[in-house]
Amino acid sequence: MRRLPFSSDYMEGAHPAVLDALIRTNMESTDGYGADPYCAAAEQAILEACGCPEGAVRFLVGGTQTNALIISCLLRPYQGVIAAESSHIAVHEAGAIEAGGHKVLTLPAQNGKITAEAVRALTEAYYDNEVRDHMVQPGMVYLSQPTEFGTLYTRAELAAIRDVCHENGMLLYVDGARLAYALGSAANDVSLRDLASLTDIFYIGGTKCGLLFGEAVVMPCKDLIPGFFTMIKQHGALLAKGRILGVQFGAMFGVDGVAPQPGVLLYEQLGKKVVNYAQRIRAKLIERGLPLYIDSPTNQIFCVYPDADLPALGKKVNYGYMERYDADHTVIRFCTSWATQEEDVAALLEIL
Amino acid sequence: MRRLPFSSDYMEGAHPAVLDALIRTNMESTDGYGADPYCAAAEQAILEACGCPEGAVRFLVGGTQTNALIISCLLRPYQGVIAAESSHIAVHEAGAIEAGGHKVLTLPAQNGKITAEAVRALTEAYYDNEVRDHMVQPGMVYLSQPTEFGTLYTRAELAAIRDVCHENGMLLYVDGARLAYALGSAANDVSLRDLASLTDIFYIGGTKCGLLFGEAVVMPCKDLIPGFFTMIKQHGALLAKGRILGVQFGAMFGVDGVAPQPGVLLYEQLGKKVVNYAQRIRAKLIERGLPLYIDSPTNQIFCVYPDADLPALGKKVNYGYMERYDADHTVIRFCTSWATQEEDVAALLEIL
Amino acid sequence: MRRLPFSSDYMEGAHPAVLDALIRTNMESTDGYGADPYCAAAEQAILEACGCPEGAVRFLVGGTQTNALIISCLLRPYQGVIAAESSHIAVHEAGAIEAGGHKVLTLPAQNGKITAEAVRALTEAYYDNEVRDHMVQPGMVYLSQPTEFGTLYTRAELAAIRDVCHENGMLLYVDGARLAYALGSAANDVSLRDLASLTDIFYIGGTKCGLLFGEAVVMPCKDLIPGFFTMIKQHGALLAKGRILGVQFGAMFGVDGVAPQPGVLLYEQLGKKVVNYAQRIRAKLIERGLPLYIDSPTNQIFCVYPDADLPALGKKVNYGYMERYDADHTVIRFCTSWATQEEDVAALLEIL
Amino acid sequence: MRRLPFSSDYMEGAHPAVLDALIRTNMESTDGYGADPYCAAAEQAILEACGCPEGAVRFLVGGTQTNALIISCLLRPYQGVIAAESSHIAVHEAGAIEAGGHKVLTLPAQNGKITAEAVRALTEAYYDNEVRDHMVQPGMVYLSQPTEFGTLYTRAELAAIRDVCHENGMLLYVDGARLAYALGSAANDVSLRDLASLTDIFYIGGTKCGLLFGEAVVMPCKDLIPGFFTMIKQHGALLAKGRILGVQFGAMFGVDGVAPQPGVLLYEQLGKKVVNYAQRIRAKLIERGLPLYIDSPTNQIFCVYPDADLPALGKKVNYGYMERYDADHTVIRFCTSWATQEEDVAALLEIL
Repeated sequence: MRRLPFSSDYMEGAHPAVLDALIRTNMESTDGYGADPYCAAAEQAILEACGCPEGAVRFLVGGTQTNALIISCLLRPYQGVIAAESSHIAVHEAGAIEAGGHKVLTLPAQNGKITAEAVRALTEAYYDNEVRDHMVQPGMVYLSQPTEFGTLYTRAELAAIRDVCHENGMLLYVDGARLAYALGSAANDVSLRDLASLTDIFYIGGTKCGLLFGEAVVMPCKDLIPGFFTMIKQHGALLAKGRILGVQFGAMFGVDGVAPQPGVLLYEQLGKKVVNYAQRIRAKLIERGLPLYIDSPTNQIFCVYPDADLPALGKKVNYGYMERYDADHTVIRFCTSWATQEEDVAALLEIL
Repeated sequence: MRRLPFSSDYMEGAHPAVLDALIRTNMESTDGYGADPYCAAAEQAILEACGCPEGAVRFLVGGTQTNALIISCLLRPYQGVIAAESSHIAVHEAGAIEAGGHKVLTLPAQNGKITAEAVRALTEAYYDNEVRDHMVQPGMVYLSQPTEFGTLYTRAELAAIRDVCHENGMLLYVDGARLAYALGSAANDVSLRDLASLTDIFYIGGTKCGLLFGEAVVMPCKDLIPGFFTMIKQHGALLAKGRILGVQFGAMFGVDGVAPQPGVLLYEQLGKKVVNYAQRIRAKLIERGLPLYIDSPTNQIFCVYPDADLPALGKKVNYGYMERYDADHTVIRFCTSWATQEEDVAALLEIL
Repeated sequence: MRRLPFSSDYMEGAHPAVLDALIRTNMESTDGYGADPYCAAAEQAILEACGCPEGAVRFLVGGTQTNALIISCLLRPYQGVIAAESSHIAVHEAGAIEAGGHKVLTLPAQNGKITAEAVRALTEAYYDNEVRDHMVQPGMVYLSQPTEFGTLYTRAELAAIRDVCHENGMLLYVDGARLAYALGSAANDVSLRDLASLTDIFYIGGTKCGLLFGEAVVMPCKDLIPGFFTMIKQHGALLAKGRILGVQFGAMFGVDGVAPQPGVLLYEQLGKKVVNYAQRIRAKLIERGLPLYIDSPTNQIFCVYPDADLPALGKKVNYGYMERYDADHTVIRFCTSWATQEEDVAALLEIL
Repeated sequence: MRRLPFSSDYMEGAHPAVLDALIRTNMESTDGYGADPYCAAAEQAILEACGCPEGAVRFLVGGTQTNALIISCLLRPYQGVIAAESSHIAVHEAGAIEAGGHKVLTLPAQNGKITAEAVRALTEAYYDNEVRDHMVQPGMVYLSQPTEFGTLYTRAELAAIRDVCHENGMLLYVDGARLAYALGSAANDVSLRDLASLTDIFYIGGTKCGLLFGEAVVMPCKDLIPGFFTMIKQHGALLAKGRILGVQFGAMFGVDGVAPQPGVLLYEQLGKKVVNYAQRIRAKLIERGLPLYIDSPTNQIFCVYPDADLPALGKKVNYGYMERYDADHTVIRFCTSWATQEEDVAALLEIL
């Protein structure tokens, strides 16, 4: 029997508009490695959406690859990256950052987020330390928007962290693996343009937001990484048929007129409906008295579930396992995506 | 004006059968990271085609990624990999092998190939050297089939190299980025089963052989690489929607009955027609008196072209630039692929 | 004016017995890279002292080098090393472990130590985690004896940690940078033989214990690290005039009859007197009501000192700065060594 | 029976003047990690000898360590280092450069040397290549002076290579492991001042030139490597008792008035006598009709020796084995050093 699909946001293929674009362009012959008109058009559309026409965009395949590559390209060998102890790079990338030679300098997370104050304290402790020359220098701050727990940084919070970064010679990098679901949240006040003006580099997630795969790295200052193309190649991150990334992101950012309505980009609109689905699940959980583990305003809802009830739930629903909470409870996740069907949400609410 | 597309074999999207499979399965919901039925079925089909049902298959995204990952997983830190000085890993992977910590121990190439004798000589020189403990130990031999110049190893040549490897504690790894075009060549006597019995590990190329992207690593002995999954993740080579690789390779290896005719796999049949196209181009070049740079029996034809005539050719044909030959000549490549149209071949022959 | 030297245990040259051995052998001509009679004799003497004549010893130059090399040699790329968050490898080696590709999996420290229970909890959490294949696998436990805060593991504590290690496929490695001061402590119950029987690998510190420089890596099982010599070379850790290390350690371990008294090794006896000096300083601090930051039974004494009194102290005493304690206090260290003079201790006690 | 010691120049301890300085300063108490007056004085003396008072000197332990560290500090990840195929970094450093992530781009050697023309050709071939973005970029040229075969670059040759470097955005780095024997050769026209004005960075070898160990890295522009101290630490190359390096180099460069005669530095004078010894051996070999393998004007003499006569020679002389020449001959080396005794030279000449 089919179980309701709420375990993650990368369980289906591509959004229909993306798939259509791939089908439409399939037999065209273009140059490889991103030197094609589709990548150029998608880059231009993204830069326009970000309000930084002088910047540059590079298309990569996946999130861990993107994080490892960018951090490795931007840090000096003696530098590390500050991140939440619950962040993807600290926990779930199999040590990719360390494999690239860098320490992740972790900070305790509050709802998956770190604060400007904590970043400042860590940085000051480093610069105040008399033996700091024997220690890893903080060289970058890594954030995810939304975070791994679905929470959001506000524009003010980002600006405060950016200030600490720049006062201390650090770069600010934002991982937007699920960025469409931030943009689609009513609670969000950070636009693509804000990210471009507040960060040194960020990426717009495709894999979890309707593409077969793909992440778009945005550099508001285009010369940020000398030799970037060669480093992408060296990391095994250069797609031979690079245009497949350009075609997909083009569909999301209005190239070829594929926009849900005039002036609205598919990428910005994609998350609205499904974040709303998630919030209905959240409301239901609260109504049922099931405690939220972390209260998220985006497409992932985390709750503390009685172990005794999990087998029954699991028969009907494919939910996400997160971690053990206590002897009798487990943290689980309900995740919606661009592919979530309204009737499945209704069925889930019924079950809950 | 449209130029005839003969520059490379990764200029179009996916083979229609592959694209169809992606479209057909697009909205299904499956687990991520390769733990889905499509990857399982494709693995089984490939192992069957290779005659090693006890082996294992892992799907990766691209060739440089695959080479860097496998070499890094299998060599000890003090070991290097023997390869032709013209090999992809030695020249065109932006130093990815060295970035992973290993020296490429190059041998002069003859028609893009290395010999068992040369491998033996290098290995013996190492073991005879009194200060070998200060030197990089040869730990693996890397070959490409077909080579970067389209030439083929015979079964006997592979067996001889395999023998030298195993006598000296080295692994044999074959890069099959263009393997379909070896399998499609009348001159080829090395089957998938031969590769599985003669090598320790090899990969079946998808990117250049009709997939949007993807390479299938075949390990006849399934436990060759402890922790392989985690190392794939660590290298940023783990596709979240892993099933996209399974679906594509499934289409190539007869899963779901997508076979050109009973008992014939699409992957094995794909290259026949287009290698024939390439050989017609080869015959024409010889007829015209244009010297072949290297004589290839597969889908890539290399010739020495007068610089004076290149601009005219370039207006009509998108050929591949290889390297300068002498003051007045350039080595260029004509490359056919699964996407090559017969009328384009006819037009090219006309122009030549 | 000369300040009393209590800041560290690597401020002077070599112990007179070590210097004498260097002088005596200076003009002899021997083979390089450790293939000399002095290294052979020192290896044999150390193995005898450790009760593992079938083992092997390799001599390296410094502590960070030794830690980085051993961890890099013994972990698989997807593994990390468990260590106290206050451990040298986690804080004061400039990211050397990460530069070698490995994450340091930190545990909270209690008096600089970690417990078998905490190691077990971390390991079980890893093996219980459903997505552990996306995470760094714990592959080794790193301890220092004495710790960075001068505290000691008991034989029972080491045995308990060793058990957790071996139950979970992890190696146990002990950093003995200051081992002579553990061996010289009345509170210590862990002998060289215990270390050899309880650990997989450990090192006997020379730099901080009377040598010009040098650390002796002891492997009770001599084949623990295949290709170790070449990896030492590759890490830039192979001393050309390797015999200088053998000569120095030989002097410490009774080669050539340089023993303080029959049956007692200089290395085992070296710390006794000066640990006693340190304990007199400790007693004085307690008497004075200056709180100990951590209570250490070896040669390092840590106390919380009022900032207001530091300038006066600093004029007369070269103490070690550790870290800020609160707005008005600093953690400082008084450190004795083989070179400490009794009259300087008396003078310090006077000042305190 | 004692064999005459001619196998290498690192078989004895330290030059008497160096040993005296160590003995004299042994019990002084100084700060660690190079922050001591001896390192400061040695740095100043070296910079003065090099005519670059605005530069900086850092003291490291050994040659492979120095090469690996400097190359790793100065190259971007996508860059490689050009070197002779017979160079130490290409052959005898166990892959240390590749372990640091960089390819060694080898050029054929002529008498152990490479030419400005060959460097230019390699560089131009790279910049002319249409797919250079997929290739390793040459970022540095590595030379050794004298070379591994004892030969010397002239000032004009160095200047020509320097020009090619700077025209192509590459740094010039000179490995002076045996520099004292270049400075002591009558054939040499390259002074320390020349090296400081012609290179971006070079090192003055101590290990093979009379120190127990140690190499002095000279940077005419002191800010060449940001974070150098921390990277030294990270590479395990930071000596705790750093002053031991300062004391030794100080003795060589006239600190504390230890000069053989007014205005002459011990380091510059050290090689004269023993290079002369080597040249007498060379003359004898020629007289005897034994062919020189490479004709060297410094302290290493390479000749092609009949295998039949080697056992007899080996009974009396500890010579250096280099490599097999042909079925009946071997390349061997006679090497003199600061420690070579005149009577041993006479005895060797007698035997030859």
